[in-house]
Amino acid sequence: MRTSGRVTIPTDESFVEGTREIAAKWGADAVRDCDGTVLPKNAKELGKVYNTYFIVRGDNEWGRRHPEEAQRIFLMSERVLAVESSVKIPFMAGFLRDQFDPDYANISRWQVCDRTTGEMLAADEWEVNRKKHEITIPKAKKMHEYTVSFLARVTWHPVQVYNYITNNWTCEKQLTYDPAYPATKEYIKKHMREWCENNPDTSVVRFTTFLYQFTLIFNEQGKEKYVDWFGYGQTANLVLMDEFEKETGLKLTAEDFVDGGYYNNTFRNPTLKFRKWQDFIARFVSKTVRALVDICHEYGKEAMMFLGDDWIGAEPYGKYFSDMNLDAVVGSVGGGVTVRMLSEIPHVKYREGRFLPYFFPDTFFEGNEQGAVDELNRNWLTARRALMRKPLDRMGFGGYLSLAAKFPDFVSRVTEICDEFRTIIHAVGENKPYCALKVGILNAWGSLRSWQSHMVAHELWYQQIYSYQGILESLSGLPIDVAFLSFDDVRNGVPEGIDVLVNAGDAYTAFSGGKEWRCEKLQAAIREFVYNGGGFVGVGEPTACEGNGRYFQLADVLGVDEEVGFTLSQDKYNIEKAAHELTEGLGKTDYGEDKKNIYALNGTKVLDIAFSDRFKRSVNVGEVKMAANEFGKGKSFYITGLPYSFENSRLLYKALTWCAGKDLYRAYAENVNVECNYYPASGKYALVNNGKQEQTTDFYDVKGNKRTVVLAPMQIKWIEE
Amino acid sequence: MRTSGRVTIPTDESFVEGTREIAAKWGADAVRDCDGTVLPKNAKELGKVYNTYFIVRGDNEWGRRHPEEAQRIFLMSERVLAVESSVKIPFMAGFLRDQFDPDYANISRWQVCDRTTGEMLAADEWEVNRKKHEITIPKAKKMHEYTVSFLARVTWHPVQVYNYITNNWTCEKQLTYDPAYPATKEYIKKHMREWCENNPDTSVVRFTTFLYQFTLIFNEQGKEKYVDWFGYGQTANLVLMDEFEKETGLKLTAEDFVDGGYYNNTFRNPTLKFRKWQDFIARFVSKTVRALVDICHEYGKEAMMFLGDDWIGAEPYGKYFSDMNLDAVVGSVGGGVTVRMLSEIPHVKYREGRFLPYFFPDTFFEGNEQGAVDELNRNWLTARRALMRKPLDRMGFGGYLSLAAKFPDFVSRVTEICDEFRTIIHAVGENKPYCALKVGILNAWGSLRSWQSHMVAHELWYQQIYSYQGILESLSGLPIDVAFLSFDDVRNGVPEGIDVLVNAGDAYTAFSGGKEWRCEKLQAAIREFVYNGGGFVGVGEPTACEGNGRYFQLADVLGVDEEVGFTLSQDKYNIEKAAHELTEGLGKTDYGEDKKNIYALNGTKVLDIAFSDRFKRSVNVGEVKMAANEFGKGKSFYITGLPYSFENSRLLYKALTWCAGKDLYRAYAENVNVECNYYPASGKYALVNNGKQEQTTDFYDVKGNKRTVVLAPMQIKWIEE
Repeated sequence: MRTSGRVTIPTDESFVEGTREIAAKWGADAVRDCDGTVLPKNAKELGKVYNTYFIVRGDNEWGRRHPEEAQRIFLMSERVLAVESSVKIPFMAGFLRDQFDPDYANISRWQVCDRTTGEMLAADEWEVNRKKHEITIPKAKKMHEYTVSFLARVTWHPVQVYNYITNNWTCEKQLTYDPAYPATKEYIKKHMREWCENNPDTSVVRFTTFLYQFTLIFNEQGKEKYVDWFGYGQTANLVLMDEFEKETGLKLTAEDFVDGGYYNNTFRNPTLKFRKWQDFIARFVSKTVRALVDICHEYGKEAMMFLGDDWIGAEPYGKYFSDMNLDAVVGSVGGGVTVRMLSEIPHVKYREGRFLPYFFPDTFFEGNEQGAVDELNRNWLTARRALMRKPLDRMGFGGYLSLAAKFPDFVSRVTEICDEFRTIIHAVGENKPYCALKVGILNAWGSLRSWQSHMVAHELWYQQIYSYQGILESLSGLPIDVAFLSFDDVRNGVPEGIDVLVNAGDAYTAFSGGKEWRCEKLQAAIREFVYNGGGFVGVGEPTACEGNGRYFQLADVLGVDEEVGFTLSQDKYNIEKAAHELTEGLGKTDYGEDKKNIYALNGTKVLDIAFSDRFKRSVNVGEVKMAANEFGKGKSFYITGLPYSFENSRLLYKALTWCAGKDLYRAYAENVNVECNYYPASGKYALVNNGKQEQTTDFYDVKGNKRTVVLAPMQIKWIEE
Repeated sequence: MRTSGRVTIPTDESFVEGTREIAAKWGADAVRDCDGTVLPKNAKELGKVYNTYFIVRGDNEWGRRHPEEAQRIFLMSERVLAVESSVKIPFMAGFLRDQFDPDYANISRWQVCDRTTGEMLAADEWEVNRKKHEITIPKAKKMHEYTVSFLARVTWHPVQVYNYITNNWTCEKQLTYDPAYPATKEYIKKHMREWCENNPDTSVVRFTTFLYQFTLIFNEQGKEKYVDWFGYGQTANLVLMDEFEKETGLKLTAEDFVDGGYYNNTFRNPTLKFRKWQDFIARFVSKTVRALVDICHEYGKEAMMFLGDDWIGAEPYGKYFSDMNLDAVVGSVGGGVTVRMLSEIPHVKYREGRFLPYFFPDTFFEGNEQGAVDELNRNWLTARRALMRKPLDRMGFGGYLSLAAKFPDFVSRVTEICDEFRTIIHAVGENKPYCALKVGILNAWGSLRSWQSHMVAHELWYQQIYSYQGILESLSGLPIDVAFLSFDDVRNGVPEGIDVLVNAGDAYTAFSGGKEWRCEKLQAAIREFVYNGGGFVGVGEPTACEGNGRYFQLADVLGVDEEVGFTLSQDKYNIEKAAHELTEGLGKTDYGEDKKNIYALNGTKVLDIAFSDRFKRSVNVGEVKMAANEFGKGKSFYITGLPYSFENSRLLYKALTWCAGKDLYRAYAENVNVECNYYPASGKYALVNNGKQEQTTDFYDVKGNKRTVVLAPMQIKWIEE
């Protein structure tokens, strides 16, 4: 069925006719500019017009006139060993000179740290050579390591550094400025107003993004040195720090930012002080951005947030997000997790996803049409699972449309996808699909990082995270309600409505929880919840924090613990794999990065266990990979890792329904390639074939009635009740 | 060459003639009794006579008359969840009723602990039901876990429990008694004297062993529940605890013993309080044993210690060992490590090793002669490496000699081995073999646990230890001087003469060191040592203790650190394998249990790195398995694990000589199956073929001159300078 609307395409002044043709095919109703392109003069005729807008960069003239209002960051130098009784630290070593300029005017805020003891040196214990960018410690402790945490002006916007170096640009390097300083504070409002005046055709101001860039540091060769998509490194504004101190009584030091070189990254269990700073920054950002959004609205333009470059303090699931009064959010779609991350953002009128592939020459080169179509399908099929649960409002593409236009099969497949996208929205709309149960993902961040746990750089693959990220990717397309809960949210009792809690991550990270698990209230609340019939799923090193004779603090609930060397003396006899409904017919499971040295407590059902081929014994051998436990009226499930795959997603679904005591065979397709979504309001079922082959499956409706259904490759089959 | 002497064999009254024949073949000059056998009346004619002697068990009449003087242990009950506002703990659940009897007379020493908070309850917060062996906590915190740490009388000696249950005995269960109590204190001296009177033929009193059994706890089914060969659990004597408090001002509580259920096992970083208790117990044991040894000497008998059952407080490498004035030590030989553990024991006249296999029906059954010979050779070849470095003074066998006598090939191979054993002693004797360098094994225990690191139960295989134990097994036969150093030994400077330090183990264990590594003096001392030319070898998780931005506190020395989730944001570019002399020609290395997530710092030479096949990238991928680093004038080597094999032993030797800056090609056989020992005093080289095939090898003498040598299977070839 041909439909239209809800699609944004890139265009530029040299491809107006082509744009018109493709827009017709895809039903596009909006155009956008792209890095290095200029919109055609009559862009408005093509539909709504999106225009990129930068708040804190782009006007180097302003930046040059107000160097004192540049953005700031605390950087930790490399560690330098004191070989003699005095030591010199060339603190800019390893940093990109063009990105940072040491802020000597505020040297009183710098800290020199003995990293061997963790102690800060007094101001009179070190000297600075401003020409050489070098600190000297005249009386160092020999064989101790020292660092300098220095304040620097950010003299080159990190995102432009990346684009500039990647694309061999030669344009001017963009300075930064900070609206927390008085002149820039007024300037950004004036600039916004002028820009609106000068861009009458723009329907949508696409903010890319707001005030503070996530932490992104380059090394002396211009290669990325440090990246944390959630990082507050660049919020080190001294005016704000002073105001924060006035408000809270808490004085922020350089160490509060550099955190021993960890920079409070998202895997660190956040300190209360840091959480308060985040809250303070979020209030400042939302207030500041609101003023600009109001101006956009005054000029009849919509305000759209790109999620995100300078998105720090503007977190869509944060407390003050609604205060900005934004109209829309756009972000890129890598898979189901990023769809849900975008599609569930509250307080905006619409949410747009930019799909892959980009229309760039790395994909759209001569002879690679099938490659482009394959990438399109891969991206679409992964994202579609999540769209079936909670659709985006719009979709879009990026890059050079003229490149895509050269591949007719690609254009035609996008045409089908755009139609399918609109069909999904039509069918699902605002109707909440049937959910078999409600899961609470429990970590230090809770709802603030909804659909954003276990990420370092946005969507980038890391070996240490995919085995946990697979849980969210699975959930993004499962008929399960998902809540993100912080430890504070459950400390006084697990919220009503939660069927199963999930705790997943490496020991001591913010996602597992580290020392939070030594909190008696937290432990008791979760035991109470499970004991009375709730479910608990642990992945990796859940509830891990050594103490009181245990590594997993809720080992009693989970039925497993990890051998870290302290319990080798305790004999372990529960080493036999037990038959269980969760593993019936299950093949070899992919545990991803897996965990070693997990053992089962007595009474636990061992669902999978690996034995070393080096030694055979009937005690103290074997590493548990998967286990199930009953605790009071409740149940728990443990697995060492869960990378995303059709099989693992299904295993998780089974485990969650089992833990929740629900009937698996309701609105359920037995074939793992097929998933069933049910929409009670319309009485429709959507059976979705996630694979590229034809599939036959047993399908159970919501009452448990079974029939057999055949699906074409990639098909969505709609079945009415 | 036929020689004789230095061999002890088992015998019994029914096999006198056979004993005589075999003794002649093997050159045996001593006989011993064995569990369940009686020595022949004229045993003396067969040679020296060893007789088993027990101090604190065996006289149940005495035990029954003095129940208040039974040995004591603090046991921690299983954890019990408070489901309601009151909770009952049947604290004997999970323990073997016959082994332990709750000591209600000393209930004031018991502790009830809220294991969720770690807090102890006040005495009026719990009640005991002595009939049911049950504690009630009337006002428990709901969903908290509670334990009872109760004092128990040890009413069945743990070693007899094991023998009794394993062999289906039906004899009387042996009680225990404790010479720290006044009556038993006198009794054991009287008994010793009487026994000497009644056993005139005995030449050697084989103490099996002294006062306090290592911690060995059985469960309600009579299966081992907890075992720590180094454990002080059974030293919980109240008289001694009171004296200890008087001496040190430190009051020991139940928790000091049960340690959350870990019972201060040897993998725990010992607290200062526990170390002081160990010292106190050692003084008491050596003083008490000395009195008995004096009696033996008075009767012209030698005193021999079996290492060890009740050996706690009598550690051969302890400070007070010499005070006991023992004549000899005997222990079982599992491989090179146990040989060196025995052969280096100071302050005795001779050290005897009991070799494998035991002459028991599990090996000596019809048709298994070749199996018995194979086990004999395996044991002998592994042990021989160590004997070449530091020979034992005597060897022996255990079991029923009549069984061995049925296997003529076995008897004949033992004949050869006994001759080879004597030849080695003759050649090596007290001459110190040439050592290329001196290594210091650095851990929390130091010399007290010489050749005893990474052991749980004596010689038993555990998956979590063999990758470290392989280091000692390698060293036991390498031309390297080995010292065992505690952190205290190096805190103020690494001792003179050490070329390379080795730190090996899992993070936070006593062997890696845990929080010791946050000590600035320790860090500085080792950096100083390496910086000035010393070597450092790390295996597994050396120097690991998260803090100050690092996991491995000496990451700068090692050149590697472990990703535990906090440094994911830091880009890692050093992921290419570098050519290096240590890995030249090296095949696939066996890392044993291996470690994940190790990454190299800049400048480090990555010697081996594993990549996941899930994703390809040029940054932030790969797990380092082996690395070399230069630090000042010194060098370091890191490897994730080092189980024993010929190849790994050679790799370790190469790494150590490289770190020490020594020439590898001195007194060296290039073929990994062959090892070279050089004895400067006699000017002799022994080339030892450790394998069962003929080997050809390049051999370098101590001046570096090369020649080619061929060795028969298992041959030792002696070459004179």
